[in-house]
Amino acid sequence: MTNNSTIAAISTAPGMGAIAVIRLSGSDALTICDRVFEAASGKKLSDQPANTLHFGKIKDGEQVIDEVVTAIFKAPHSYTGEDVAEISCHGAIYIQQQILMLLIRNGARQALPGEFTQRAFLNGKMDLSQAEAVGDLIAASSAAGHRVALQQMRGGFSAEIAKLRDKLLNFISLLELELDFSEEDVEFANREELQRLISSIEHLLTRLVESFRTGNAIKNGIPVAIAGKTNVGKSTLLNALINEERAIVSNIHGTTRDVIEDVIHIDGLEYRFIDTAGIRETLDTIESMGITRTFEKIRQAYIVLLITEATEDPASIAKQVEALKLTEEQHLILVVNKTDMRDDPDFMEAFMAALPVELNEVVFISAKNRENLETLTQKLSALSGLTTEDADATLVTNVRHYEALSHALEALHRAGEGLVMHLPTDLLAQDIRETLHHLGEITGQVTTDEVLGNIFKNFCIGK
Amino acid sequence: MTNNSTIAAISTAPGMGAIAVIRLSGSDALTICDRVFEAASGKKLSDQPANTLHFGKIKDGEQVIDEVVTAIFKAPHSYTGEDVAEISCHGAIYIQQQILMLLIRNGARQALPGEFTQRAFLNGKMDLSQAEAVGDLIAASSAAGHRVALQQMRGGFSAEIAKLRDKLLNFISLLELELDFSEEDVEFANREELQRLISSIEHLLTRLVESFRTGNAIKNGIPVAIAGKTNVGKSTLLNALINEERAIVSNIHGTTRDVIEDVIHIDGLEYRFIDTAGIRETLDTIESMGITRTFEKIRQAYIVLLITEATEDPASIAKQVEALKLTEEQHLILVVNKTDMRDDPDFMEAFMAALPVELNEVVFISAKNRENLETLTQKLSALSGLTTEDADATLVTNVRHYEALSHALEALHRAGEGLVMHLPTDLLAQDIRETLHHLGEITGQVTTDEVLGNIFKNFCIGK
Repeated sequence: MTNNSTIAAISTAPGMGAIAVIRLSGSDALTICDRVFEAASGKKLSDQPANTLHFGKIKDGEQVIDEVVTAIFKAPHSYTGEDVAEISCHGAIYIQQQILMLLIRNGARQALPGEFTQRAFLNGKMDLSQAEAVGDLIAASSAAGHRVALQQMRGGFSAEIAKLRDKLLNFISLLELELDFSEEDVEFANREELQRLISSIEHLLTRLVESFRTGNAIKNGIPVAIAGKTNVGKSTLLNALINEERAIVSNIHGTTRDVIEDVIHIDGLEYRFIDTAGIRETLDTIESMGITRTFEKIRQAYIVLLITEATEDPASIAKQVEALKLTEEQHLILVVNKTDMRDDPDFMEAFMAALPVELNEVVFISAKNRENLETLTQKLSALSGLTTEDADATLVTNVRHYEALSHALEALHRAGEGLVMHLPTDLLAQDIRETLHHLGEITGQVTTDEVLGNIFKNFCIGK
Repeated sequence: MTNNSTIAAISTAPGMGAIAVIRLSGSDALTICDRVFEAASGKKLSDQPANTLHFGKIKDGEQVIDEVVTAIFKAPHSYTGEDVAEISCHGAIYIQQQILMLLIRNGARQALPGEFTQRAFLNGKMDLSQAEAVGDLIAASSAAGHRVALQQMRGGFSAEIAKLRDKLLNFISLLELELDFSEEDVEFANREELQRLISSIEHLLTRLVESFRTGNAIKNGIPVAIAGKTNVGKSTLLNALINEERAIVSNIHGTTRDVIEDVIHIDGLEYRFIDTAGIRETLDTIESMGITRTFEKIRQAYIVLLITEATEDPASIAKQVEALKLTEEQHLILVVNKTDMRDDPDFMEAFMAALPVELNEVVFISAKNRENLETLTQKLSALSGLTTEDADATLVTNVRHYEALSHALEALHRAGEGLVMHLPTDLLAQDIRETLHHLGEITGQVTTDEVLGNIFKNFCIGK
């Protein structure tokens, strides 16, 4: 995947800024800098102590490109574990490009996406799950998403996994010793101890696998489906919720979310609204529908908002609720919109009384007039059952980890059953080996170029 | 304008990057950092030596916001001349905002545009013309524009101006001494020496004032007007030229030029194409036009491209050339477009022979087929008379400097004439004072809050 060459990249956001930072990493980082950087002190960077800052000029031959400050870090005490130089230049796009091209002409190579972090992993500065968290941290756009990524970057569950993996490794070597002496029928590995270890690991893995639902909701947003017939005011409601939000996030420039119109933030958590246009059109003819993609979306939702109009006959609600086919884990909020069209004082009590089904959560709003929206967001927050503090728990947020943990759990479960059934040692050893393999995938003790390529290709260049 | 508060801003380009840098400057910069930064070493930043780098955590109480590297600089050896801290954090927009807000809650104030550079000026780290050049440097988008800004930032003509101003100041004090002793009719100031000094300064100022045309062309692009009747292929030509260019600049992302479609780069210089749509429509009825805004644009052009079609009768060219009313300083290129519509082999010779006026520069092209465009760009480059090396000369690029120099020259000229005509000393002293005032405006020895406000309001925040 990588080699010993020295890599260079613009590490700050693309575009013009007051300053920009160009990062170099590799055994030649400082000597390449020496070729283009003339320190005001007249001294060579490669002779300077680590963790120091140096003012000087970047020169292409006699031509001055910029006046800069260069920071130097020395292996292994740097982000990548290699020698690193970071050149802070004036933030003109032209200057950034000129310096990067100059470094490349002087022996550096343009870094691939995530290559600095990949080197940090390969040089043992962090394990693979921590490296993945660096990417998540940079992409995080909510308080909770940020906290869960930071937690993972700082170790998360991977240290625990590694510790348990070491204990299992100890057992597997004893088991394999038994296989070497198989004709003598000895038991080096204490079966009761192994059973206890397997149980405790199974317990941990089960908890982690189950945490993925929460972790995913925190990282990618809590899925909320909006259902209801056409013209009940779904898009007016969404726009109203987003406009409330805009006031809060307006000072965050350059946001990179693709579909901002479908995400709102409540108390540091992201709520991702799912378009169920299909449902709205087909609610009345639901019997003929069968399982559709739209219904799959509803099934993914933590919370479903069923929107209806204040002028609707409450009797029709039961059919609509039934059509949603919600599971017990899911929460339903009946949102009665267009209260502005009713001026009879007792209408809400009457509406509630006329409801043919018992619904715990009913909110009367006027999306058009932005009335009572806060009650709705408070209900969303309460029903999600999540707060930003949940991000501090040990959570699995990464599909790759979820799959590896699930596979490890399956193999371990087989090992545990095999132990109970006194299956031959070689079968037991094979299941434990498989568990070890899947656990090692998470932390990167077991990996392939393909896996690394897939992980780092989504990083930005310069990280 | 400023006060003693400590200012903070995100100094890297807006948006998500691998890393971002948040800069603090002021007497409390390090103590504010100490409140939120927990160094891995456990030591306080304010106790650390200047020009060092420190790894640690940014914490809001117990909540970790990010793991960062903080660079510290100490007054007066920093960009602003004050204590400075630069926090390199992970480049998530969320993190950048959180850290900035945390610093503000802990005693910093959000910096105004250009406030770091303004402090550098106020603290004597650079003069005003150098501070202005920092802004130009960041905005520079061509090799020549970059070089001319860098030259100015590194001193340019301002050191020379300051030296001459000191000499004039010496004379003015002698002249004012004479005024104190006016009843005794003494001459402390040697009139011949003063005459020589005035002449040498007049010589320099004249050269600088005259350099503005070149300096402006290098900084803002060489103005090229495109004239010709409708449908001769003006926009096809522009698009073709820009597409040639795009191949070169395509790796420069996030460019901030407002109207990229009207600028092309040739050999490191920018050529700014001026829309003369008005002319094209009215060339035939030019007599009735009078002086129009369109003609003012043509008059600003270094080079005028008169576009005509290969199928046009060459006899009509004379009238079109005459209508342009070019000055002797301006260059005309006749561009005969749509050569693809002619397949008679001798057509070019015939066309040239039939031209009723003698034109030095005629280029036959097919904009549609992108034929012979390089000949055209080479001619533009040759006729501009400029190369990137010209950017290394001492040039005035700034309208404010141009105006101050012009005013200084006028006052100095009056002083010189007064000296010849033996005008009274108090009139002479007044003219020299006025010269000093205008020279001082350039370097910032004479300034007002309003002038500073106008200069720095166009800077980006964080510089």
